Formats: sequence, C-alpha cells, structure tokens
Amino acid sequence: MAESWSFLDHPETNFRPLVVIELAKGTKKETIEWFTKRIVDKKANGGAQLLVKPLVGENKDENIYLVGASYLRLLLGAETVGLVKECSDNSMRTFTYRSRKTFKDFADDNHSFLTMAECQYIIKHELENLRAKDEKMIPGYPQAKLYPGKSIVRRLLTSGILVQIFPLHDKEELKKLRHSWYGQVKIGYQPLDEIRSYFGETIALYFGFLEYFTFALIPMAVIGIPYYVFAWEDYDKYVMFAAFNLLWSTVILEVWKRICAINTYHWGTLLMKRQFEEPRPGFHGVLGINPVTGREEPMYSSIKRQIRIYLVSLPFVCLCLYISMHVMMIYFDLEQWALDYHEENGSNFSSLMLFVPSVIYAVVIEIMNRIYRYAAEFLTSWENHRLESSYQNHLILKVLVFNFLNCFASLFYIAFVLFDMKLLRQSLATLLITSQILNQFAESLLPYWLQKRHKKRMKKLMCSLKTESDLSLVEQVNLEKDMGTYLGTFDDYLELFLQFGYVSIFSCVYPLAAVFAVLNNITEIYSDALKMCRVYQRPFAEPTANIGVWQLAFETMSVISVVTNCILIGMSPQVNALFPDSKTDLVLTVALVEHLLLAMKFIMAFVIPDKPKDIQVKLAKLEFESLEALKQQ
Amino acid sequence: MAESWSFLDHPETNFRPLVVIELAKGTKKETIEWFTKRIVDKKANGGAQLLVKPLVGENKDENIYLVGASYLRLLLGAETVGLVKECSDNSMRTFTYRSRKTFKDFADDNHSFLTMAECQYIIKHELENLRAKDEKMIPGYPQAKLYPGKSIVRRLLTSGILVQIFPLHDKEELKKLRHSWYGQVKIGYQPLDEIRSYFGETIALYFGFLEYFTFALIPMAVIGIPYYVFAWEDYDKYVMFAAFNLLWSTVILEVWKRICAINTYHWGTLLMKRQFEEPRPGFHGVLGINPVTGREEPMYSSIKRQIRIYLVSLPFVCLCLYISMHVMMIYFDLEQWALDYHEENGSNFSSLMLFVPSVIYAVVIEIMNRIYRYAAEFLTSWENHRLESSYQNHLILKVLVFNFLNCFASLFYIAFVLFDMKLLRQSLATLLITSQILNQFAESLLPYWLQKRHKKRMKKLMCSLKTESDLSLVEQVNLEKDMGTYLGTFDDYLELFLQFGYVSIFSCVYPLAAVFAVLNNITEIYSDALKMCRVYQRPFAEPTANIGVWQLAFETMSVISVVTNCILIGMSPQVNALFPDSKTDLVLTVALVEHLLLAMKFIMAFVIPDKPKDIQVKLAKLEFESLEALKQQ
Repeated sequence: MAESWSFLDHPETNFRPLVVIELAKGTKKETIEWFTKRIVDKKANGGAQLLVKPLVGENKDENIYLVGASYLRLLLGAETVGLVKECSDNSMRTFTYRSRKTFKDFADDNHSFLTMAECQYIIKHELENLRAKDEKMIPGYPQAKLYPGKSIVRRLLTSGILVQIFPLHDKEELKKLRHSWYGQVKIGYQPLDEIRSYFGETIALYFGFLEYFTFALIPMAVIGIPYYVFAWEDYDKYVMFAAFNLLWSTVILEVWKRICAINTYHWGTLLMKRQFEEPRPGFHGVLGINPVTGREEPMYSSIKRQIRIYLVSLPFVCLCLYISMHVMMIYFDLEQWALDYHEENGSNFSSLMLFVPSVIYAVVIEIMNRIYRYAAEFLTSWENHRLESSYQNHLILKVLVFNFLNCFASLFYIAFVLFDMKLLRQSLATLLITSQILNQFAESLLPYWLQKRHKKRMKKLMCSLKTESDLSLVEQVNLEKDMGTYLGTFDDYLELFLQFGYVSIFSCVYPLAAVFAVLNNITEIYSDALKMCRVYQRPFAEPTANIGVWQLAFETMSVISVVTNCILIGMSPQVNALFPDSKTDLVLTVALVEHLLLAMKFIMAFVIPDKPKDIQVKLAKLEFESLEALKQQ
Repeated sequence: MAESWSFLDHPETNFRPLVVIELAKGTKKETIEWFTKRIVDKKANGGAQLLVKPLVGENKDENIYLVGASYLRLLLGAETVGLVKECSDNSMRTFTYRSRKTFKDFADDNHSFLTMAECQYIIKHELENLRAKDEKMIPGYPQAKLYPGKSIVRRLLTSGILVQIFPLHDKEELKKLRHSWYGQVKIGYQPLDEIRSYFGETIALYFGFLEYFTFALIPMAVIGIPYYVFAWEDYDKYVMFAAFNLLWSTVILEVWKRICAINTYHWGTLLMKRQFEEPRPGFHGVLGINPVTGREEPMYSSIKRQIRIYLVSLPFVCLCLYISMHVMMIYFDLEQWALDYHEENGSNFSSLMLFVPSVIYAVVIEIMNRIYRYAAEFLTSWENHRLESSYQNHLILKVLVFNFLNCFASLFYIAFVLFDMKLLRQSLATLLITSQILNQFAESLLPYWLQKRHKKRMKKLMCSLKTESDLSLVEQVNLEKDMGTYLGTFDDYLELFLQFGYVSIFSCVYPLAAVFAVLNNITEIYSDALKMCRVYQRPFAEPTANIGVWQLAFETMSVISVVTNCILIGMSPQVNALFPDSKTDLVLTVALVEHLLLAMKFIMAFVIPDKPKDIQVKLAKLEFESLEALKQQ
C-alpha cells in the first residue's frame, strides 16, 4: 500500500470540487490554516490527503472551501469505506485497489467508475475520520476541547466553527436525472438506478418503496371501486374484500423484502460491511477505552440509558398519549355541545359554531404534534445514544406512536365507541383527502416557490457583481449553501405509514381509501422528486440495505389491521343478522376467525423467504469463496 | 502450508485409536485395500492422510478398522473444520496452524489441546470429505457408482459396504465424567463443560437446556403448591397465577437464548463458521454444477420439492390430523357408551368395561404414532432435501404437529367442548404422570438393563477366548459396535416440549403440573446421563450454536398457552359471576386481555436482547478486528 499512497504526492492539475465546507464568519486564521493543513496532509501524518480550494467569491467575509480529491485517492478511499462494486463476471465484490482490474468498467482513466455520490460519500467519510492526534483543543478556540482520536469535524460542528458540509450538485447529471425522472410525461418505472447513483441508496430505496407500494395498492383500489360505485353492502362481499386486503397486505410487505434485497444486492449495499460506527456528534460521557475498537472515546453506561428510557421517556410518552386522548374526548364533548346549541337556536351564528370544535381541535392537534416532536427530540438526545442509528430508531418510535394515536384515535372512537359507520366513513374521507392535499402543498410546492423567489433575487444580485473566472460555480455554491437541508426520509415514510393505516385498518368500511392513496402517491412521486432535485441541498449518499425500522412499523400496522377489520365486520348489521339469538356466539366466531387470520399471517411471513433464491445463492457463493480463501491462506 | 503437510510423512509410533469403521462381512479385499489406501494417502493425492489399523480380534470374518491421526494432522484438521478456541488473552478465535502459539494451553507436546470429541469430529469430517477422483465406481462393486467429487464414505454407507462409523469411548474420561455427572449424590449444576468436551455441543446444549428448564420451572412449581394444598379456587388468585405463568414462560425462553449464547460463545460454536454443508446421503438428482461451490453434485429443482411439500406432504399431514381427531371422537363416544352400559347393568363385567375404551384408545394412539412416524420419515426423505438440517427441520415439524394434537386434542375437547374442569384435571394428572413414568422406563432403564445383560454375556464369551495383546481394546470395540446408536436429541426435546405444553397450556387448571415436571426432570437428567454414558454408542460431536427449531416450537407453545389460559379463566364460574348480565361483555373482556397479553409478550421478546451485552461486545470486537485486518492487507 505504501507505494500507492506515495503517488498522491503529485498534485493534480484538474481539481473537481465535490464537497463544500462552510466555516463560520470570522473564524480565526490559525484555525483555518490548521484545519486545511490537516485535510491536505498525508495519511501517514494523520491527514486526509484530500484537495482543498477556497471559493473566491464577491464576499470576502465568507469562509467557504471546496474539497476534492485525486482519482487515485478516491479509489483508495473506496476501499477504506468498503464499497461493493460489480465485477466483470457480474458478481458483486468488495472493491480493493489491488483487485481493481477485475471490476466492470474499471480503467485507470475512466473517472466515472465511481459515481459522484460515491466520491462525495468517501470524502465525507474521510473528513469525519480526521482525528485529533496530540492537540488538546482546536487552535484558536481553547473551549473546543480535543482528545486523541476525537473526530475533528464533529468537534468543529458542535462548537459552531463549522457551519455546514454539503455535497455539490452536478448540473449536467441533475438535468439528465430530472428529465428521465419527471421531465417527460410517460407511464413507467422511476429510474431507480440513476436516482441511486445521484442521491445514494437510502433515498433511492425510499422512492423504490413509494413506487412499489403504489403499484401494490392498485389491486386494492381496483377491487374497491365497484364497492363504492354499486354501494355494495352485502356482508359476504365485505368479508371477501377485507380478507383479500389482509392477506394482500401481508404478501406485499414480504415481497417488498425480496425486492429490496434484489435492489440492494445490485447496488452493493446488501453485502457492504458497515465500518464500525462512530459515536454520534451529540454523544457525551467520561473518556474511556471503547472495548470494541480499543480507541479512546466518551463512554456512557447503558444502564443509565435504560433508566432514562424506561423511567423517564416511557412515562412521558404514555402521559402524552393520555393527554392526547383526553383532548380528543374534550373535542367530542365540544362537538356534542355545538350540535345541541345549533339545535336549540338554529341561527346562522349557531351553524357557524358547528365548525368551531373541529377548527380548534385541528389547531390544538397541530400544536401538540409540534411540541411533542421537540420534546421527543430533546428526550431522545438526552437518552444519550452512542449511535446515530439507535438515536434515529428511538426517535422514530416515539414520534410514530404519537402520530398514530393522533390520527387514528378519533376514528377508533367513532368506530368502536360511537358505532357510527357513516360518520366514520365521512371522517376517514375528510382526513385522508385534506391531509394529502395539505401535505403535498407544505412539503414541496411551498418550499419550491420560496426557493424560486430566492434564486431570482440571488441571480439579480450576482449579475450586478459579475466578474470573470468561474462565476457559475461561485453562484452555484452560494445558491446551494442557502438551500434547506433535506432532513432525511423520516417524514416521507411517516406519511406513507399513516396512509397505509387508513387503507388497511378501515379497509372494509371505506374501500375507496386505496384509490385516493394511489392517486396521492402518483403525485407524491413527482412532488418528492421535485423536492429532491430543486428545493433542497443535495444530501450525502447513505448506504443502506433495507428500510430499517419502517419495515417493522408497517408489519405492526398490518397486524393491527387484522384485529380492527375483524371487529368492524363483526359489528356490521349483516353479520349481526346471522347470529340473531346470541351475541356471544358472534363474538366468539369473530375472535376465532381473527386468530386464524393472524396465525395464517405469521405462517405466511415465515414461509415466504426474505431473499429470492438467486440472491441467496449469490450470497452463499461469496461466503463459500471467502471461507475457501481463508483456508488457502 | 506445503511444508507443514510434509511433516506428516513420518509415521508416528504411538497410534491412538479414535474412530471405528465397521465394514460388512465378506467385503471384497480390493475394496478394503482401495479404501484404506485412500484414507492413509497424502492430501496432495486426494487422501485423508489419517492412520488406519485393523482390529485383530477373535473373529476373522469381521472387517473392523481403527482410525487415528497424528497430532499434527489433527491440528491441521482443526483448521480445516474451522474450530474456534480460546486465545491466551481470553478471546475466542478461529484456530489456524500458523497462529497456534497464541492459543491458550497450546504446546507442541500438549496433546490435550484438542479434546477427544474434537479429534473424532475432525476425523469424521476428513473421512466424509474423502472424495472420488476419477473412479467411476467403488472397486469390486460396479453397482456403487462414483463421480468426481462424490463423498466415498457416503456412497459406501448407502451401498451397505460400510456398516457403521462410530467414535470410541475413552474409558478414563468417561469414568471421570460419570463420577462428576451422576456418580455422587449432590445438589448442583451438571458439569456442562465436561459433557461438552466428551459428547460435543449438541448434547451438552440439550442437557444445559434440560437443567435450565428445570430450574426455570421451580418458581411455577413453588407457587403452584399452595393452590393445590389449600385448594384455592378464587378467581383472582387463578388469574394471578396464570398471568405470572404466561409472562414467566416468555421470560425464560428469552433468557435461555442469552444463556445459550454465553455457553456457545465459550465453546466456540457461536463464532464457528460452518463449512459449506454437503448434500445429505439420501439426496439424489441429476448431476449438475452446484452454483455455490462450482462442484459437480446431484441437483434437484426446488420447485419440485415445494410441490411435493405443499401438494403431498401438507395434505397428508392434514389428513392424519383429521383421522386422529376422528379417532378421538370415536373414543369419546365409546367412553359414553361404556358409561351408559355400566349404569344400565352395574355388574362387575360392566365396571371392567369402563376401562376398555381407554385401553383401546391408548393402543390405537401408540400404533398411529408409530405409523405416522414412519410415514413422516418416508415423506420427508421423499421430499429430497439437499441438506441434513432442512431434512431434520421438516421431519421435526411433521412429528411435532401430530404429537401435539395427539397429546392435547382430548384435553382441549374436555376443556372447551365438554367444559368439564374436573375431568380435565384428572386426565391431565393421569397423562402427565403415566407418560413420564413410561418414558423414563422405555427410554433408559430398559435399554440399560438389556445392555447390562449383553455386556455380561460378552464378557463371559471374551474371557474364554482371552489372548494377550490389547484385548481390552478388542473387547471394548466389540462391545461398543453392538450398542444402539443414539439417534439424536429429537425424542428428548419432544418430551420436554410436550411437558412444557402440559405445564403452560393448562397451568391455571392444574397448578401441580409444574411440580411433577420438576420432579420428572430431575430424574430425567440422571436417566438421560445414564443413557448417554452406558447404553448407547458414543455419538460424534456435532457443533451447534443453538437449539434450532426447538426454540421456535417452545415459543409457539407459549403463544398458544396465552390463548388457552385466557379462555380457561374466562370459563371459570368465578369470572362468569362477575358478568352476570351479559356473556358478550365477558367474552369481549377476555379477548381484550388476551390481546394485551399477546402484545406484551411480543414486546418483551423484542425488547430483551438475544445476547448479553458482553457477548455482543466480544462479537463486535472480532468483527471490527477482521475488518481492520482486511484494510491492512
């Protein structure tokens, strides 16, 4: 390896900017010098051996730097992060510099072997792994303590010296992607592979799931239409519809795992061994030796964390759920009161009053949601999780439960306490349609419009100051640095999750839900694509092999839907008419059917393999080869 | 490696017999010569490079051979099979000959570094991996076809030339083990580590599970005793008992996983990468190229297998279950008829007649069980599974379902159709106690007695023919070759599984079940130990990391027990008295409680980590080190 690194000493002539680093205004000069020196320094001296260039713009106050790397450096970095690429024999293998010739499309002068997103991921990884040696603090900032092995970039971020790091858009690529993604009017699949090479696996997998889910809902929607059109109310037809939905929802979730495995196998992330995860930036504790890596890093007792989770967070979440339920009950009381008032008075004013409870409730819910979200973030961060992934999982779980209750509690109340199917259908339709329209507006059209206005203003500003060299790059960086940061796929998945709830939990009451979901998702694909390409900063690619905790969330939802559907069918007058003498028999029958359905569900989930046969064979082959290689060694 | 193998050329003077090979009487001389030559031949020539010695006994007809190996050969074999041993720094690592010095207790002259069971496992593995080169058939037996890569030993076994291969007992070791296991009267844990080094991990894990399970039942038994003694029948006490049992059974199954991980980590099997599994001996198909290994071997389409499983085996099993139910119904009719007859006549003859249905039913059940077992074995073998493990899983599943129904159907009928709790308690007690006594008798005492008689007869025979050299070895081999083969832990686990069913499914009706189970298991430990040490041939060690499909079976049982216990409590008169007006409310309440309990169960199973923190850290450390090593490479 030593000889390979020495190649890097020759400075490259063609510098391609990949990542932008924005330092705070007025950062001390010695800090900047130290930091950039560490970035360009040789690996052997503990540097990242990358290339750095200051962005020369109109504004001298700003400390913006462009980071790039030589092609060779990127290849070595690809080996470090454990990238998996396709070989000439179509198998997927972990890339190593030594075996580079065996990889498909590899040539020493083919700089497109690594996608731009991969290059940016490598640079991000190298920057984050830039570690303090014997520095006790960041030069110029005595309060920003360092200790051997501490990630410099993370300390710079937490102490506010580093404002942001983000990858640059590639205008050419983006144009192509936009065109094939949503530029032309056509019916067809999304260009997932292109999305993946531009935005990385996490985002490509979200769009893949969105598309798959939309297709999977079509049969439900198609079957649901005649129920609405002909107003079928026969119990046997409903039972059939519900039974189909229940089994279908199990099947689609299992099949998704297989499709996900196929995609991530070809993207290489199914095989990618994640490097040992670093503590997340906010993690704090007493310095100690990590038993796994042997490195010095903050340590925090997991018992203390458990205590915080089970004795503080859990009761808090339960309390919030209780309060939310209570607010709902007040809303129903208010509603009743408004109705009574209207009946008594019958004036214009009183009919206006009818809307007041709903409006108040909607506002209160929205406020509660926001407060809860902050509280959940604060609590999860206070739980002091070592890993970003476990932080995310705990946060998702907290937000998920609350949102689920907020969305469905009133529907459950209407269904199982008031027994009012007509009102249920109405509320369901209102909720589904309004939430979809609002979401799409708030999520992409509004930011898009704001973005566009900002861009125009910037352009005007720029034109007046236009100088010679490389303005378009300066312009681009200045535009992108003010764009919003894409905060991850959380909200997008949450939306799909709630939608899946509306479709599956009350499927037998409101068969049209699937139709609305399909229509929404088709536009959602376009608005989300617009959001990714136009509104937000380009996010760093994040390799992933599956949709993580969301798979579990969707599966839990489909179990809940079995229970609710069985109860709803049991409550229908047609089924009740079948058991005229004894309600007990009815309940027993419903319970029996429910248990059988649940058992069937679990057996099906168990029997359907999570990976298709050919992927299994390919994985086994790799495993076998590595064992054989070990023996030969 | 080449130089290491060359060491082996020097024949060793001290030959230690480890494994016995018995060939059929009258096996052709050329076959024997060819086979032994292949065993001793150098690795480079495709041999196994082991040592072979014919057993010179009194009977010249018999073709018995002893197989051993040089110490060096065993060490190299340990590397081949991927044995994991403890290092000097207390971590577990895969053994390699090159790094041998870093392992604890390793010395070039310390022959106890590998346990005898490990040596025997290595020899078995080497023998089974002795593969045909260009032979088209076994010399002397043209009907026993070979093809390149076919395991010679497996073909010899299937064509009947090789009667059996078994590992020899080590008298000294066995004596020590017997003493510490069941030789002294003491209260304490079993010497699991010693059992493991003598019999291997699968058997040690069974005894570990048996012991753990017995300890885990003690709280249930202790709480159950006052219920019996004071005849507590209050509903609230019963509910508490049942709730405790349900949560307890979840906890013990989860905790077992952790204990299992601790044990198998220290035994090295948790980390052991199983070699690529060979097709099981009975597997047949058209010759093809295995896509994983690239070796030539029989291929069989998995779709054909699926068809056989789902279109033949599954309907057959369902039919058998149906027949078994039908027979049970006939039994209940007969019982009723006998009762009526007795009431009408009231003679001695008629009171004798009362027992007839039970006796007939017991006999029929036993016959059905045996026929079904054969049918299941035939069907599973006809399904043509490639792997021994998948064959075992399918067989276990088939036998499990049938046995479960046979044991519990009549109890379910009594409980949920006849609603006769008194009869249920009676039947439960009878079934539990008689089955336990019968089992212990049939399983160990009877074979032990037969064995003892046989041994005496053999000893007499031997004494009359006594000659000089190494008679005790000849005697030992001759004794052991006629001992029964231990057919694996299947029946032992099945017994525990059904016992767990009796204890958990009807726990709230018959609190004493746990007491009987504990008493039975204490004697079971001793009788099983006796069986292993005295009755059967020594089995080959089988590395394993967990109890496999049994974990799933026990977990399924504990889910079923939640349902039955809730129903039983719901049926009790005390609970019924709480809902005097509406049975529907009662059923709804019971269903609600059941769902809550099930949800709690799943959440608990999800929250309790499968491996203790320190094992997780150790595994992560190994993973981290191997990734770092890969980077350094």
